[in-house]
This record gives sequence, C-alpha cells and structure tokens, in this order.
Amino acid sequence: MATANFDVVGIGNAIVDVIARTDDAFLATHGLVKGAMTLIDAARAETLYAAMGPGIEVSGGSAANTVVGVAALGATAGYIGKVCADQLGDVFRHDVRAAGVSFSTPPARSGPPTARCMVFVTPDAQRTMQTYLGACVELGPDDVDEATVAGAGVTYLEGYLWDKPAAKDAFRKAMKVAHDAGRKVALTLSDPFCVERHRAEFRDLVDNHVDILFANEAEIESLYQTDGFDAALVAAQAKPARINVLTRSAKGSVVAANGAVHRVPAEPVAKVVDTTGAGDLFAAGFLAGLAHGRDLPSCGRMGAIAAAEIISHIGARPETSLKQLVKAKLG
Amino acid sequence: MATANFDVVGIGNAIVDVIARTDDAFLATHGLVKGAMTLIDAARAETLYAAMGPGIEVSGGSAANTVVGVAALGATAGYIGKVCADQLGDVFRHDVRAAGVSFSTPPARSGPPTARCMVFVTPDAQRTMQTYLGACVELGPDDVDEATVAGAGVTYLEGYLWDKPAAKDAFRKAMKVAHDAGRKVALTLSDPFCVERHRAEFRDLVDNHVDILFANEAEIESLYQTDGFDAALVAAQAKPARINVLTRSAKGSVVAANGAVHRVPAEPVAKVVDTTGAGDLFAAGFLAGLAHGRDLPSCGRMGAIAAAEIISHIGARPETSLKQLVKAKLG
Repeated sequence: MATANFDVVGIGNAIVDVIARTDDAFLATHGLVKGAMTLIDAARAETLYAAMGPGIEVSGGSAANTVVGVAALGATAGYIGKVCADQLGDVFRHDVRAAGVSFSTPPARSGPPTARCMVFVTPDAQRTMQTYLGACVELGPDDVDEATVAGAGVTYLEGYLWDKPAAKDAFRKAMKVAHDAGRKVALTLSDPFCVERHRAEFRDLVDNHVDILFANEAEIESLYQTDGFDAALVAAQAKPARINVLTRSAKGSVVAANGAVHRVPAEPVAKVVDTTGAGDLFAAGFLAGLAHGRDLPSCGRMGAIAAAEIISHIGARPETSLKQLVKAKLG
Repeated sequence: MATANFDVVGIGNAIVDVIARTDDAFLATHGLVKGAMTLIDAARAETLYAAMGPGIEVSGGSAANTVVGVAALGATAGYIGKVCADQLGDVFRHDVRAAGVSFSTPPARSGPPTARCMVFVTPDAQRTMQTYLGACVELGPDDVDEATVAGAGVTYLEGYLWDKPAAKDAFRKAMKVAHDAGRKVALTLSDPFCVERHRAEFRDLVDNHVDILFANEAEIESLYQTDGFDAALVAAQAKPARINVLTRSAKGSVVAANGAVHRVPAEPVAKVVDTTGAGDLFAAGFLAGLAHGRDLPSCGRMGAIAAAEIISHIGARPETSLKQLVKAKLG
C-alpha cells in the first residue's frame, strides 16, 4: 500500500454557519428542537433568518470542522463537499483552504446557493441548528475523487450525508474506494434525530463497513435502542475490531476496541460558551492522534483537548493553536 | 420643530467585515499600514483574501456600528448606506435591522458586490483594515431620504464617505437637510489617513458645518496639524459652540464644548482582544447619552462603557447588552 497522501479526508455537507445568541423563549416560539439539527427548506430559512438576532458567519459543516482540526493539529487533511459558486461558497472555500486543508471539489455553477446553518446559542451554551442544505444536494459520486480517497489513511464520513440520495451514493462510493485501497473508514453518527431517520441502514453501516465510529451518548443509545449508555457500550463492542469513540460531554469519553475499554476524562473548560463543533473537534483530535501513532487513550485526550478549545468560544473552527495546546498538555 | 422620528441617523459605507487573527510579519510581508484603513481594489482584495488566514464575517461599517450601538443603548436609530443585492448584502441588512435599526436604502441591483473590509487583528489587539468599497460607490444623494434625515435629532456622518464623489454629494445633502430642519450634524473623522486625504475640506466642514465632532488623537492632530494633543485640543475649541469628543484609547477621552473641558477616564477592560469599532461604539454611547438628555461627562462615560465592551471581543458589533452595562455602571 502506497504512503497516504492525506492522513484524513473528510466528506460532508459544506456549510457556512450563521450564529446568534438567543434564549429558550425564542426556541419555543419558533418550535425549534433544542440541541438538535433540523433540516429546513429555503422558505423556512428565510422566515427564521428574519426572526433571528444579529449574527456572525463562520465556516462550518461537521466533517469540514473535523478536517480543519486535523490540519490544525499537524496532520494532513483533505475535504470533499459541495458549495455553490457564490459569496458564501467563496467564504467556505477560503476558510477550509486557509486552514491548510486541501479542497478542490468543483462548486455548483447553478442551482441552490451555498448551504447555511442557523445556529441558535442559548445562555446554557447549548446550540440548536436549523440547516438549509442548498448546494449540498448537488454532491454526488462524481465528486468523490478516487485517488484522493484511495490515498487517505482514513476517510471520515458524516452521517448527515445520508439525508440526500446523491450524497448517500457519494458516501457509498467513498467507503468502497477506501476499503478497496486497504484504508480505514470512519463515521460520525452526527445527530440523534439523524440516527432515528436512518437507523436500520446506519446499523448495517456501523456493524459491517465502519472501522472507527464516533458517536455521542444520545446517538449510540438511539443506534442500538438501548436503555442507558452502559448497554449501548456493550452493544458497540459486539464487533471487537471496530474502534468505538463515544463522547459523553462533561462526563468524558469512552474508547472501546479489541475488548479493551479506555475511559478518558473531559478537559476542564473555564467557561463553556458555545458547544457547536464539540463532537467534530473531538473527532479531529482523535484522528490526528491516530495519524501520529499515539495509543488510544492519548488519542482520546487529544480529542478532549480540541473539543475543550472549541466550546470555549463562538463557532466551530479553532481560534487558538490546537497544536500548541496539545503540546503543552501531552508533550 | 417636530419630534424626531429617530434620535440618530447614521450615513456611511455599508460593509461586511472579514476578520482574521494574524501577526506583524504578515502585515510587513503584504505592506499593510498597521492600524490604518486602506482602500483597495477588487484585484488586491482577491490577492489579500487568498493570503489571509481563516476568517469570520461580522457586519461592520463605521456609522453602521455606531447606530447599532445607539439602538442597543435604547435610543432610536436609522441607517443609510448601500449594499448590493447579494448574499453579503443580505447579511448586512439582516444584522443592522435585527439590531433594531431602521434601514431601507434600496440595494444596488447590478454593479460591484457588497463592500467588505478585511480586518487583520494582531496579538496586540490592534486592527489593520483593507477595504474594498464595492457597492458603496453607488451611494448618492438620491439615497438620502429627506424625511428620514429631517426627522433625526442627530445625523451622524463618517469621514470615509468623502473618499467617493457621489457619497460626498450624499453627505453634503444630508448635512443641508439636517440643518434646514434645525437638527444637529455629527461627524467622525474616521482615520488619520482619511484626514490627510481631505484635510482642507475636512477643516472647512468641521469648523463651519459640524455640531458634534468625534476624533481620536491622531485624527485631531492631523486635522489641525498640531504637535501633540494639547495644541489640537486648543485648536478644536476655537469654535466654542461645537461639541468636540476626542478619544485617546487607554488615556480616556476629552469632551470640550462651550469653553468647558471634561476629562473622562477609559473604562477598565480585563483583556483587550480586538480594537475594531472602539471609536464607533464610543460615538454610539455618547450620542445615546445625548439623546437621553445626560450631561456631557455622563455621555463620555457611556461612550467609554460601550467602547470597552466592543474591544473585549472580536468584531465591532456588541455581544452583550450595552443597556444593562450602562445601567449597572451609571444607573
């Protein structure tokens, strides 16, 4: 097997986040499901945006946040995702490239605009996401460059891709190309409601095609329909070769693989400001750790450190040097 | 004279800021004048953006930042400025309206895109601005709605408007309409290089047409070509009826009017993060104080409080309730 061109290639919905602080009353008035990611159409996006307070725009997208974190930690990363050739598409492309991530998926020249996700951050630092997928629906198998995926140590896929048929085909192609090249496939379950929408297929994916699984407590419990985290952890271990990376917010994380269970504490945070991207950056730290040949508990620590940085400010892209943070804490 | 429909109407360049942290080496490599606002063309904007690190987008524009602050402090505010009918134009319009500011200048339907300002923030929290004016060059006298300006207690103009002929005409019209209606005209000198570009005209404006002048140390010294602040302060007082609001960063501010000089301390800030918008928000606090009938030293305190909030985070739009901050500190 040739040396990988990238440690990690992420494939996901290419999204610009529009972030505003709000209160619980706003969520109630507009019927938003707190803490969840809800897909909305263009008309609903317009209505909600008109009601939203002043915002800031930060590039986002789950897998994109992850590969940006991977690059920030000194591993090599690429990204595949679809924007439109418009101003927000330019912003997305600029930010992911400026972060040191290789990104050359051609933008859509017509059709819906670049995707945006309205992120409503409540005083408890919880984020509630309303996503208009826009140009993301144009992502298809042709966008999955075979050489890029075959040349990546890990191909990292977001569960959110499963919401659109063409993206699902892109996902399947990437998985096949990666495995045919002897590479690893990683998946994040993305969101408990996303798991609910696709549970049977996700179960098959996870148990038969995925080498590294990222999920939070709610997602893994929904996947295996268990009552409580411990039962879900047992279910996840039924396939011993898979690395299960299960995050539990302030309770830390659990890494289970090959019969061993490693419990990793959460990294202390002075003040949690906005939890957007916590899971994405945990995955980034973990994957960068793997790329650097660290053991599983250290990979978990790197995930915890990267997640702690991201939740200490608004937005899901790092604001300080993750590399220096990890160096200071882990050496 | 009828009751004012707005306490303050701001007229300025409608700009979305693209903000990235950088270091002094980057400024040197690209020949950027630290701390200044430099106008650039579309080609230069593209080159610099490609070299810029990952950014965030926050609505900006000097006078727009000010009226947003005025509204946040519980006074009524309107805005006149030109965006293009594009995605960043939508962002600008949304943010200024969501802040409670009335804004109905029609967007340009063709021509250059919405203006953007690349803001490079160095570790010392200084900001260096590179502005592509885009659609702002389309702002002209027709955009100055006479009823809006005649119905505003104060019309607040930014010196930056003087850089483009049509905007200059808009500026002159607004000044005449305001004075004909018996209203006040306020001006910010904007930037020392802007003063240098237009010194003779600015001197005439300030000494013969402006009721309330906002300037920082470098700007007022450049306007009167004095050696040091004290001489500039004396020069500014030659027209006793004008209110001079002169800001001196950490050294506080000086409010001089009708022969009296009030020295106002700067508000303490735990950590200065990004000085973008400090002057704009100082003006906001001062003008909101005037609208609420406060005395000049209290207006200065309100300016200092608003400025302190804005420099404690990235971006020139308030992130916490300015109204509550002022209430806690001034009652």
